[in-house]
Amino acid sequence: MNAPSSHTLQQLLDARYGQGPQTLDCINETIETLMQHRSVRAFTDQPLAPNTLELLIAAAQSASTSSNLQTWSVIAVEDPARKQRLSALAGNQVFINSCPLFLVWIADLARMQSMGETRGKTTGSLDYLEMMLVATIDSALAAQNAAIAAESLGLGTCYIGAIRNDLEGVARELGLPPRAFATFGMCVGYADPAQRSAIKPRLPQASVLHKEQYNLSVHGDVVETYNDTMDAFYAAQAMKPLGAWDLHSLNRVRGPEAMNGRDAMTAALHRLGFALK
Amino acid sequence: MNAPSSHTLQQLLDARYGQGPQTLDCINETIETLMQHRSVRAFTDQPLAPNTLELLIAAAQSASTSSNLQTWSVIAVEDPARKQRLSALAGNQVFINSCPLFLVWIADLARMQSMGETRGKTTGSLDYLEMMLVATIDSALAAQNAAIAAESLGLGTCYIGAIRNDLEGVARELGLPPRAFATFGMCVGYADPAQRSAIKPRLPQASVLHKEQYNLSVHGDVVETYNDTMDAFYAAQAMKPLGAWDLHSLNRVRGPEAMNGRDAMTAALHRLGFALK
Repeated sequence: MNAPSSHTLQQLLDARYGQGPQTLDCINETIETLMQHRSVRAFTDQPLAPNTLELLIAAAQSASTSSNLQTWSVIAVEDPARKQRLSALAGNQVFINSCPLFLVWIADLARMQSMGETRGKTTGSLDYLEMMLVATIDSALAAQNAAIAAESLGLGTCYIGAIRNDLEGVARELGLPPRAFATFGMCVGYADPAQRSAIKPRLPQASVLHKEQYNLSVHGDVVETYNDTMDAFYAAQAMKPLGAWDLHSLNRVRGPEAMNGRDAMTAALHRLGFALK
Repeated sequence: MNAPSSHTLQQLLDARYGQGPQTLDCINETIETLMQHRSVRAFTDQPLAPNTLELLIAAAQSASTSSNLQTWSVIAVEDPARKQRLSALAGNQVFINSCPLFLVWIADLARMQSMGETRGKTTGSLDYLEMMLVATIDSALAAQNAAIAAESLGLGTCYIGAIRNDLEGVARELGLPPRAFATFGMCVGYADPAQRSAIKPRLPQASVLHKEQYNLSVHGDVVETYNDTMDAFYAAQAMKPLGAWDLHSLNRVRGPEAMNGRDAMTAALHRLGFALK
């Protein structure tokens, strides 16, 4: 069921870091699946095989979850009209309409709240930022397992952070109860082979991997190299150049005017039942 | 390199949900690795093979990251004295001392801040809750890839949420710059075969998987069944019974007195450079 093993680990590492050589062995099918990842934003109309959704969720539920509280949910959206409305809420990313399955991952404290009411127990911790983070992390670990399972089956995926542009609109569309919010969406489907994406290079390991203590000084030295790597990547992919990676990235975080509504998230979460103490 | 394939998918599903039969096919090595997950809290003194760390990080960097901003880092801790201090900070979980590699995953906006200073650009978005969530989710997706890569190599892992008990103490120990905090730790090593853990059952899929819209009503019906499943699991594992799963779980979220310091997280994050607007 896996993609044909046409790449060596060395080729995958070269693609991921835009440079070589590195010496790593111990490849296996799972690591190859992980390292083959690229986001897919164009899908064929091929439907998923029967029971694919249930298999993805079984993989998701196999991920670690804090204290086995399982503070996440997922909404499987296949209705074209609902996908279209969610696409509009998520920055008009029209390719959401083209995937057969759109998963919306939920940080879910509503089940705990409901259990507390049934048992007549206080649930004061749910009002704290910590429990919102627990639920967010739970949803991310589950989602990443589902993404990997999907890719191992030859499917393509794409995370949709823009689902957070309008948390309340999304909550209404999905009928979320209080104390639940969408952390991100995920497109799932078969990649359009005519628009196959490439493995995107990442920062050198020295920027993100620190030994014993954090070392920020390394990063400054590698930014220019990585800017060059990304320039070469966009050129090789015949993609529109975005400008130097650091400048392009900084432009995205320049201030609330660039946040597509997510600067209002704290207030929105309050209204959705998260006190965030 | 993978664990021997001694389980069928059906057996794995039975273990994960404590019930059968379900009909799912399309198994492959990657999905088996995902579904075989169990947390490991007892390690042998066998060291990791050379380059294992670098391979885990290559897998981690292959995960999706919001807008390719790569707002995460990881600190690899092998120094026994530092592991001991981190163990003390993280609720005295002594098995942290017994794993050869302790990874601390970092939600990292410090690199963006540094790049902004270098380029003389404003980075106002870093002061918002949204960007703290982006970094937290980035760190979780990366960490889960590393965990899966580790398990595919026959290693065991355990997430350590208690690293958030004292965010400032951990930041000092790891020399974190402002705008960075530890989202969780992760033990990595070879599982002690004498204390091999079992696959833990999860809630029925109907509790977490919703079609088109959220449906809370299903959950109430399955809590008692899941309580029974977990009772049977603990009995089969000869583990100390924790009481009914819902009551035990509710006890963990009863209020700030049960949060081991994490009720002070908002104030701690402010002091670590997160304005959380």
